[in-house]
Amino acid sequence: MITLRDLGEDALIARLVGLVPRDPRPAAGPGDDCAVIDPGPSHSTLQLLKTDALVERVHFLPDAPARAVGWKAAARVVSDFAAMGGRPERFLVTVALPPETRLAWVEELYRGIGDCLQTFGAVLAGGETSRVPPGSASVISLAATGCVRRDHLVLRSTAAPGHTLLVTGSLGGSLQGKHLTFTPRIKESGWLVSNWKPSAMMDVSDGLAADLPRLAGASGCGWELDEAAVPRSAGCTLAQAVGDGEDFELLLAIEPGRAAGLLAAWSRAFPDLPLTAIGRLVDPGPGGVLAGGGLGGGWDHFAAGG
Amino acid sequence: MITLRDLGEDALIARLVGLVPRDPRPAAGPGDDCAVIDPGPSHSTLQLLKTDALVERVHFLPDAPARAVGWKAAARVVSDFAAMGGRPERFLVTVALPPETRLAWVEELYRGIGDCLQTFGAVLAGGETSRVPPGSASVISLAATGCVRRDHLVLRSTAAPGHTLLVTGSLGGSLQGKHLTFTPRIKESGWLVSNWKPSAMMDVSDGLAADLPRLAGASGCGWELDEAAVPRSAGCTLAQAVGDGEDFELLLAIEPGRAAGLLAAWSRAFPDLPLTAIGRLVDPGPGGVLAGGGLGGGWDHFAAGG
Repeated sequence: MITLRDLGEDALIARLVGLVPRDPRPAAGPGDDCAVIDPGPSHSTLQLLKTDALVERVHFLPDAPARAVGWKAAARVVSDFAAMGGRPERFLVTVALPPETRLAWVEELYRGIGDCLQTFGAVLAGGETSRVPPGSASVISLAATGCVRRDHLVLRSTAAPGHTLLVTGSLGGSLQGKHLTFTPRIKESGWLVSNWKPSAMMDVSDGLAADLPRLAGASGCGWELDEAAVPRSAGCTLAQAVGDGEDFELLLAIEPGRAAGLLAAWSRAFPDLPLTAIGRLVDPGPGGVLAGGGLGGGWDHFAAGG
Repeated sequence: MITLRDLGEDALIARLVGLVPRDPRPAAGPGDDCAVIDPGPSHSTLQLLKTDALVERVHFLPDAPARAVGWKAAARVVSDFAAMGGRPERFLVTVALPPETRLAWVEELYRGIGDCLQTFGAVLAGGETSRVPPGSASVISLAATGCVRRDHLVLRSTAAPGHTLLVTGSLGGSLQGKHLTFTPRIKESGWLVSNWKPSAMMDVSDGLAADLPRLAGASGCGWELDEAAVPRSAGCTLAQAVGDGEDFELLLAIEPGRAAGLLAAWSRAFPDLPLTAIGRLVDPGPGGVLAGGGLGGGWDHFAAGG
């Protein structure tokens, strides 16, 4: 008998989406950070859709500050809009909570969601509350609509062998608190797509070890990582930097001839946030196997820590 | 210390939505079946947004057929689009499941969601999977976008004293299985808004005893119920018919001079589904107190059965 413990998250999703009707003409393939809806050629703006969930004892501890949990729940979604070159507009917030939950805790949770929506110019459009049985983990599920200019849209699947790989900020150490307080890279993404449009982009949510192969795979490439170049958060080993997850930095690719110019312009635009070249996309190995390999770790929602 | 057990769902939602930025110019007030987004006067179609969740041991039992649970999860959302005179287009499906969940169960769940999307012409646009700690209740959270013709939109808040109240189908008995197999009234809603546009409408999800006061209150009215006229499912008492919940029938109001014509046309269009006049909206009582009163029961997500 196969259970979810036996199956990676990507493999599970691949099995499930085949069981449900899908858009016959999707504006972007499945598996990107947001779904992309094309309202028709007369529109200069595409719609983006995203859903994400936080689970107590999986994504946050029961004693975590509720306001920070609310921030995190919304900021994870905002980060996915940044990953596509877009911005969020309207949120739907569903909370499933045990009846013994303190009202003050839920109010702080909503204040934290509100902090994030206010910061990034989004609004609450609707929601749902439900109880879970006493003792069950709380679940906070957010869905959001947003938009991206048609010429600003960046997918994971549009890079090519030879393109330089870069990452914003520093990686690792999320469990020292960063996972509750991070700032989604909306401003930086907006600057990138307006000035130095990447050939592919995603946010690093499950750790570079899990996410880099996803970007490379979506673009039909292998990859080479300059391990010494990976920007590590203070006190982190390389394994922690690529494996901790929940960095919510941007991972992007750009044509190699434009990388130096981008790095110079970036350091003037964002002097306080590093942008670092960490490797390159390469031809896929024989039989389409990823060339990288050997990079263990990364967060899997069913296998890790289960 | 106040917990969610002490607070009704409506009171909780009212407290929470005040803590988060909202649309400064909403196309419809909060508290309707879907959020309504107006893309601008040049568009003949409005966007609808909805989110809803099913929780194991609250909305379905662990031994319920997974395919029926999937149908129910999607059909509840479809019913909310019917309540506004619209239709669903794109779904985001989030499942939070314990790692011991059988893969076959999740696949059947998705097949059930797929059955419903196929039936009502909607598609899956994206989703998220997460684990919950072992032993925690599964949570299935769906969000959907949809649309409604501007001239077909029906709110809860636009009826007036004197309007006749009607309900489709029969009420009560959901726990005998109907709550897993019901058909959302999309076809009937489409016929209504095209031919006999109601002055207000909603779906009966928490029981008439909970939902009728919501429709009347949103329209600034009191209400009178002809208790003997309430269409009861086979074997149900009046208390069960108004209190069981999960009927997913349409509750609507119409100007009194049009009610007889609607009833006659309905019986020709839908000979197998009753439409029944069950009462009327009246002036609100002194101090704005609802005139109805005395109608106990109805499903509250935190208080009922908790």
